[in-house]
Amino acid sequence: MAALCSIPSFSTTTNSFNLTSPYHSLFFSKSSVNLPQQSTPFNTIKCSLSRRPEYTPNRISDPNYVRIFDTTLRDGEQSPGATLTSKEKLDIARQLAKLGVDIIEAGFPASSKDDLEAVKMIAKEVGNNIDGDGHVPVICGLARCNRADIDASWEAVKYAKRPRIHTFIATSDIHLKHKLRKSREEVIQIAREMVSYARSLGCEDVEFSPEDAGRSEKEFLYQILGEVIKAGATTLNIPDTVGILLPVEFGQLIADIKSNTPGIENVIISTHCQNDLGQASSNTVAGAYAGARQLEVTVNGIGERAGNASLEEVVMTIKCRGKELMEGLYTGINTRHIVMASKMVAEYTGLAVQPHKAIVGANAFAHESGIHQDGMLKHKSTYEIISPEDIGLHRSNESGIVLGKLSGRHALKSRLLELGYALDDKDLDDVFWRFKAVAEKKKHLSDSDIEALISDEVFQPKIIWSVGDVQVTCGTLGLSTATVKLIDADGAEHVACSIGTGPVDAAYKAIDIIVKRSVVLLEYSMNSVTEGIDAIASTRVLIRPENGHTSTHALTGETVHRTFSGTGAGMDIVVSSVRAYVSALNKMLGFKETAASKESIDNSALKVPSEISQVSF
Amino acid sequence: MAALCSIPSFSTTTNSFNLTSPYHSLFFSKSSVNLPQQSTPFNTIKCSLSRRPEYTPNRISDPNYVRIFDTTLRDGEQSPGATLTSKEKLDIARQLAKLGVDIIEAGFPASSKDDLEAVKMIAKEVGNNIDGDGHVPVICGLARCNRADIDASWEAVKYAKRPRIHTFIATSDIHLKHKLRKSREEVIQIAREMVSYARSLGCEDVEFSPEDAGRSEKEFLYQILGEVIKAGATTLNIPDTVGILLPVEFGQLIADIKSNTPGIENVIISTHCQNDLGQASSNTVAGAYAGARQLEVTVNGIGERAGNASLEEVVMTIKCRGKELMEGLYTGINTRHIVMASKMVAEYTGLAVQPHKAIVGANAFAHESGIHQDGMLKHKSTYEIISPEDIGLHRSNESGIVLGKLSGRHALKSRLLELGYALDDKDLDDVFWRFKAVAEKKKHLSDSDIEALISDEVFQPKIIWSVGDVQVTCGTLGLSTATVKLIDADGAEHVACSIGTGPVDAAYKAIDIIVKRSVVLLEYSMNSVTEGIDAIASTRVLIRPENGHTSTHALTGETVHRTFSGTGAGMDIVVSSVRAYVSALNKMLGFKETAASKESIDNSALKVPSEISQVSF
Repeated sequence: MAALCSIPSFSTTTNSFNLTSPYHSLFFSKSSVNLPQQSTPFNTIKCSLSRRPEYTPNRISDPNYVRIFDTTLRDGEQSPGATLTSKEKLDIARQLAKLGVDIIEAGFPASSKDDLEAVKMIAKEVGNNIDGDGHVPVICGLARCNRADIDASWEAVKYAKRPRIHTFIATSDIHLKHKLRKSREEVIQIAREMVSYARSLGCEDVEFSPEDAGRSEKEFLYQILGEVIKAGATTLNIPDTVGILLPVEFGQLIADIKSNTPGIENVIISTHCQNDLGQASSNTVAGAYAGARQLEVTVNGIGERAGNASLEEVVMTIKCRGKELMEGLYTGINTRHIVMASKMVAEYTGLAVQPHKAIVGANAFAHESGIHQDGMLKHKSTYEIISPEDIGLHRSNESGIVLGKLSGRHALKSRLLELGYALDDKDLDDVFWRFKAVAEKKKHLSDSDIEALISDEVFQPKIIWSVGDVQVTCGTLGLSTATVKLIDADGAEHVACSIGTGPVDAAYKAIDIIVKRSVVLLEYSMNSVTEGIDAIASTRVLIRPENGHTSTHALTGETVHRTFSGTGAGMDIVVSSVRAYVSALNKMLGFKETAASKESIDNSALKVPSEISQVSF
Repeated sequence: MAALCSIPSFSTTTNSFNLTSPYHSLFFSKSSVNLPQQSTPFNTIKCSLSRRPEYTPNRISDPNYVRIFDTTLRDGEQSPGATLTSKEKLDIARQLAKLGVDIIEAGFPASSKDDLEAVKMIAKEVGNNIDGDGHVPVICGLARCNRADIDASWEAVKYAKRPRIHTFIATSDIHLKHKLRKSREEVIQIAREMVSYARSLGCEDVEFSPEDAGRSEKEFLYQILGEVIKAGATTLNIPDTVGILLPVEFGQLIADIKSNTPGIENVIISTHCQNDLGQASSNTVAGAYAGARQLEVTVNGIGERAGNASLEEVVMTIKCRGKELMEGLYTGINTRHIVMASKMVAEYTGLAVQPHKAIVGANAFAHESGIHQDGMLKHKSTYEIISPEDIGLHRSNESGIVLGKLSGRHALKSRLLELGYALDDKDLDDVFWRFKAVAEKKKHLSDSDIEALISDEVFQPKIIWSVGDVQVTCGTLGLSTATVKLIDADGAEHVACSIGTGPVDAAYKAIDIIVKRSVVLLEYSMNSVTEGIDAIASTRVLIRPENGHTSTHALTGETVHRTFSGTGAGMDIVVSSVRAYVSALNKMLGFKETAASKESIDNSALKVPSEISQVSF
């Protein structure tokens, strides 16, 4: 029947997936009622986590294993305002390693010196930190199809135990015509040469992406993919760059590539789905279904425009349904670290997760917590298909409210460890001091309180300015007045006062008088992170210097303005607003200083070709 | 081949959709490269909006027309904390009518008297307001399968030109066993009787949903659906209540129901997909693809847990790809009202939209605004598949910054009309007064500024308390002190002062002293709605009274605590926080008063059976 239906049967080199089977069994089963026939499989969704197969770039020994490629630090960081410091990138990379992702795309080294340094740091540390099971993530760097980009990428990732260069060039007619202004033949030649060049540097793990594959002519795709396989590519990534495809189409695209590309049995097929029509997660799962064995995702689904397929949705879908529907597909993700990864990425990028976000939204399991439990809900699985514990969700009313002002340093340290924070003594001291100050005012501290304090104390940029005192008067009478005392790196105190249209405006103007920088405030937001009227407020600001730092955009090659976010926590919203602003200022000032220290960077890696807009420092 | 593949060809009574064609052409085409062959169709996505067919409950004259059933006011309002006032529900219903949705599920009238009154009000006003094209939305009320619920629903919707009762009962074994404790035979009998009962009241438009259809045994589904068709149901809605299905499965479920249910050719099939695994929008589109001609969605995808399929994703997917991929499917939605609907629902429910939300997220089109335009992006369609104007998105840098302190009332009124706000003279006066006050302090007012002022002045509950003056002192020295003057409904002034852990805490405590109610503050959040350091801050709070109002949950039958949100805008964050709190208090106090005025409600409709937890008033 496969032949009748024009569905080619798949080669079994990469995996044993047989297209006639899954598509067939779902759409064209002998009995058309074979699917949710019994309620049993839905009621007891439990997966035995199979062991992760040994890593070889171009093949996977277990045909049912699906690699998770996380690009939060590359595609995610391209989101407007999501600029991360090197420290934040390293924190996220560590958390991704904990999650067990197979490949971390750590950045786009040619975009800026900071990015190159950050990828290098991640390659050196996270890329060499082998866990108890012998797993260490591949560290990957993006590069356009030119030598300078590939050099920069290799310079950054080569320190990892498993380095990968990911190079791409657009293949759709619309991109060829309007962006590249090149013919198909030219594009094939560039792709072939650059993949060879990447291999020639000593990199044995090279990924190639035909950008905008979703809108590319298929015969041309088979041709260019066949050529880069010959040139040494080990993973072929198929991006739906503009997010225009539906799951049936994307699945078909992967199936077609799998059956028509010469040499495809020797490489891994990968998916990369943008979310412009809200189809990214479904498209990604459809891709796995059709034979892709690497899925590119981001934590919380962040990324350019409407973002990417979200790690948590894709991973939990495969976990919940992979066994039953997809011939036993599984990933190596330890899902219990999902919630912490989600919180960290939301906090650092400032891209909040909406309450009704699948898996990680605040309401995703709220039928349990928000609704009065009066015994009517007799059986959990009537409305719950994932257990909150599976993704590492512990609610404050379960595990929280355990610490108060009499709690000691040891109790705090234990709770922090349970929450996933392993602090050094210096950081613990700082948090403990703040903890006691808050506990004086607030009877019980929940886990969320503690996490807010940690993010305020620990996840902060290098201190250039620190907040001394703040004093504010405001109200409906107008004439808001703020006096601020800041302390500089040498310990000297600086005091200024200002009036403003509100207390925060007044305080920020007083800070501007001290810091003497022209700053544009792009965003300001605040949340109470804990319930109750004595909640801790967490403030976030996003700023950019008037004469901004820039970097190069991965896809368009445009010059992008760097923006800097800062967070602050406290029970006084004016004080937390001041902390957030000073934190963002420190990040901005620190960024400039890093860029100035040119001696730390291998300049040979950074010969940016002249046709590409130069990075500005 | 259809026979070989066991795919039954569809009847053409409801529509001419032929299953062999769409599934076939995508998965089993003669040439396996037939899809995105040319780049042309992707480059020029434009749909000619066909005329909406005449409304008949159980059939659609044009087989390609897909009805949009919006349940923002019912399923969406079930989100934790999303409680809406009657005024807010009416505003949203009006906006849904503007959007051109075919059916508005306005509420669950048996859940509380307020809900019944709100549905009735919407039925009377929005349900009789025929637009220029002769379109008036169906007004639908939800009801469990019992006479009291159906009576309440009919009592509420019967005033509409096109009233509909939507009744449901669970059909999955897990729900039968743990929730209903009934046999399949009992469930069939109840469903049949209650559909007949709804018809017997004079309602010619009855929708039936087998709850948890996604986990129900298919043969049982065909049987119960066949029975309710005989009993007079005109629409059969298929809910994936726990959001467990993948698009291929959900599409197959719809196709199977379409081919195996006796009498199905005489009714409309509908989809209702929850988003627990992030598959809701794709599942819904897959359902349309397989023959469903009514799609249940919510604005912004809000709803219980991870929410529902989102209206904007489903509608824009059909608009972008319906012609090309789905034999010309189309909806009657005027997409230019999407952005305004999204903003209104986010504002009223307090369920924010994440920046990377597809279609309506702040970043969804940010590659245009956030990234420096230096001529590198030579052709819009290289990265843009939807034009922002298509969904009614006008950015402040395009249409904004047109009003300043010298602008007059007429200029403001014109701009408000352009933004979609038709205010009466009283409301215009209020907004104008605030506008001038802000314009005194701020040079230019963008559209966002103006929208913030409107939501602060116009979309407010009936005034019980209003804010007089606020005066606050705070800072790192502690001892935050606030003095607040509130004015009661009779114009009398009340002043109180309090200290607190921060300025907002102090102000809220002062208000509590005046208002004398025990209130739990559940959430507090703030955003600057406009860029720049003199931004207008918009504050939102969510509160609940200590001895709360409750209502009945539609699906679980549980008692749900009512919560109340309030918003406030202003350039001083303490003042805007006070406004938000007083707004929420007014909503809460007003809600109680409505519930007390029993004479306005037809009590005969409210005999709630004893086995269901009684609503509390």
